[in-house]
Amino acid sequence: MSRAGREVRLASRPHGWPTPENFDLVKVSVPDPGPGQLLVRNVWMSVDPYMRGRMDDRRSYSPPYALGEVLDGGAIGEVVSSETDAFRPGDLVRHGKGWREYAVLDERAAQRVDQTVAPVSAYLGPLSGIGLTAYVGLLDVAALRPGEAVFVSAAAGAVGSLTGQIAKLKGAARVVGSAGSDEKVARLLDLGFDAAFNYRAQPVRRSLKEAAPEGIDVYFDNVGADHLEAAIACMRLNGRVAICGMISQYNATEPVPGPRNLSLAVSKRLTLRGFLLYDHLGRREQFVGEMSEWLRSGQIRYHETVVDGLENAPAAFLGLLRGENFGKMLVRL
Amino acid sequence: MSRAGREVRLASRPHGWPTPENFDLVKVSVPDPGPGQLLVRNVWMSVDPYMRGRMDDRRSYSPPYALGEVLDGGAIGEVVSSETDAFRPGDLVRHGKGWREYAVLDERAAQRVDQTVAPVSAYLGPLSGIGLTAYVGLLDVAALRPGEAVFVSAAAGAVGSLTGQIAKLKGAARVVGSAGSDEKVARLLDLGFDAAFNYRAQPVRRSLKEAAPEGIDVYFDNVGADHLEAAIACMRLNGRVAICGMISQYNATEPVPGPRNLSLAVSKRLTLRGFLLYDHLGRREQFVGEMSEWLRSGQIRYHETVVDGLENAPAAFLGLLRGENFGKMLVRL
Repeated sequence: MSRAGREVRLASRPHGWPTPENFDLVKVSVPDPGPGQLLVRNVWMSVDPYMRGRMDDRRSYSPPYALGEVLDGGAIGEVVSSETDAFRPGDLVRHGKGWREYAVLDERAAQRVDQTVAPVSAYLGPLSGIGLTAYVGLLDVAALRPGEAVFVSAAAGAVGSLTGQIAKLKGAARVVGSAGSDEKVARLLDLGFDAAFNYRAQPVRRSLKEAAPEGIDVYFDNVGADHLEAAIACMRLNGRVAICGMISQYNATEPVPGPRNLSLAVSKRLTLRGFLLYDHLGRREQFVGEMSEWLRSGQIRYHETVVDGLENAPAAFLGLLRGENFGKMLVRL
Repeated sequence: MSRAGREVRLASRPHGWPTPENFDLVKVSVPDPGPGQLLVRNVWMSVDPYMRGRMDDRRSYSPPYALGEVLDGGAIGEVVSSETDAFRPGDLVRHGKGWREYAVLDERAAQRVDQTVAPVSAYLGPLSGIGLTAYVGLLDVAALRPGEAVFVSAAAGAVGSLTGQIAKLKGAARVVGSAGSDEKVARLLDLGFDAAFNYRAQPVRRSLKEAAPEGIDVYFDNVGADHLEAAIACMRLNGRVAICGMISQYNATEPVPGPRNLSLAVSKRLTLRGFLLYDHLGRREQFVGEMSEWLRSGQIRYHETVVDGLENAPAAFLGLLRGENFGKMLVRL
């Protein structure tokens, strides 16, 4: 008995900033699960900045989305019917077939979520690759040591807001975040950041210097551009930059000039390192253990910006790129 | 009995490219050595790119040269008279008081050179900090592994020409160098570089792609600017950049834009690391052992560009900045 569901397809590839016209909402017939498979009804789906890169027809670490095909990404589904003993109807699973209302999954592509640790949506947030990205970027890539000063850009985003909190929990002496509005700045301070600034208010370099007058040891880069240049200017000797992403460039149609002060890397002995989560999955178990404890104890708080309905998923994604979220941007189906 | 000697002083600070007017050649009276001191007559002195930075009034890893005062830098002197048992007239010592004909040294500031290993001038070249810079930059900072492909810029310079040869000796599968003339390119090939190109001939990125069609794992950066951007473009996954210097910027009067493709550091998991020799002096003993053996066996060859007379030292330095040297630029006194 197949059923009808909706999915979002890539209608056209964006040039620069994506628009609603790049997406198609389509009604499709959902097949029944075969042996070893399960059918889930998605209840949450994630929109993430990395998806912008996949809309381009360019080889990168994730394959590009195919034109005219359904998009994908992290999602939480409730099992509707199961052709495997591993799952039963009503189970909640995390999987990679977002952007659709129903999905048929191989049992190995579904991961049960434990609702005793945190609400189910946390499995698309702090308990997902997003949290692990913050964790390994800070602790492994940037090798944060207790007593150091940390700067996080896009700090009101899903990764950034966790990064700042993890830094404090791991003994950072000072954590500074940048965000795109005064309201976000206030919320960062509420989360425990020692200082935060609105990067639109004045040159980033000046703001960072005021917020970290003694300099920074670690910069967790989500932005690139003026933020990276400011961080290099404010770095202490032996500073480290973990380059997680450069959202300043995702929608750029021309190459964005790099930092003009990179030669300071010599006299300051700086290390800049780009990283992808996929190289650090061996840290997952340790991370989940620590993060679960931090969530249970309330030492880590997370925010969600929730949009309802698959038909609004493209708008949620576009809003994410414009920075309309605080914390994780999610679509509730 | 004091004697007369000449020294070169900083007459004025350059704005952009230095000129002969920035230097003063002055006759001075040389004091006698006190207890524990020795008087040397300099026979060789070194001119190096880092000296350009010291001509500016800007705090960096080395203190700026003082206006109106004698410059300094690496030199080899012959002991004329000694007020210490550690040295005798006729001994050859390496020390830091170049840019003058005679120097009075504390005994601890003088280091005897062993002429059985190599000609004495090698102690300002391959057996000096220049060789150690190539060695630690390649092996420690960039962590070269056998079988990898290496790109060296300013490869005809003192550091670059050693870097390429050390890379081959340490098992690099392919070593590519860039230089500023076809003649230099030919000499690099003669030194054992697998490929070399004249960076003035066409865009560096195109030349590098042709010279290393399968990409590079390590880039030893002496130049910055277009060379660094080209290297990032050609890097393989997990590539490393050891930033030794950025000669493209030493005489720049405006900030030089950084690489426009730095965001590739994420998908390629690149590491860029600036370094200074001073942090790696613990490697000196191991280095001197290996380099001495390589020099004795002829596995490493080095070139010198020699200018005669202290009065020509400023011209030698200006020529160095313009790339008129192959290998080490030296002044014979």
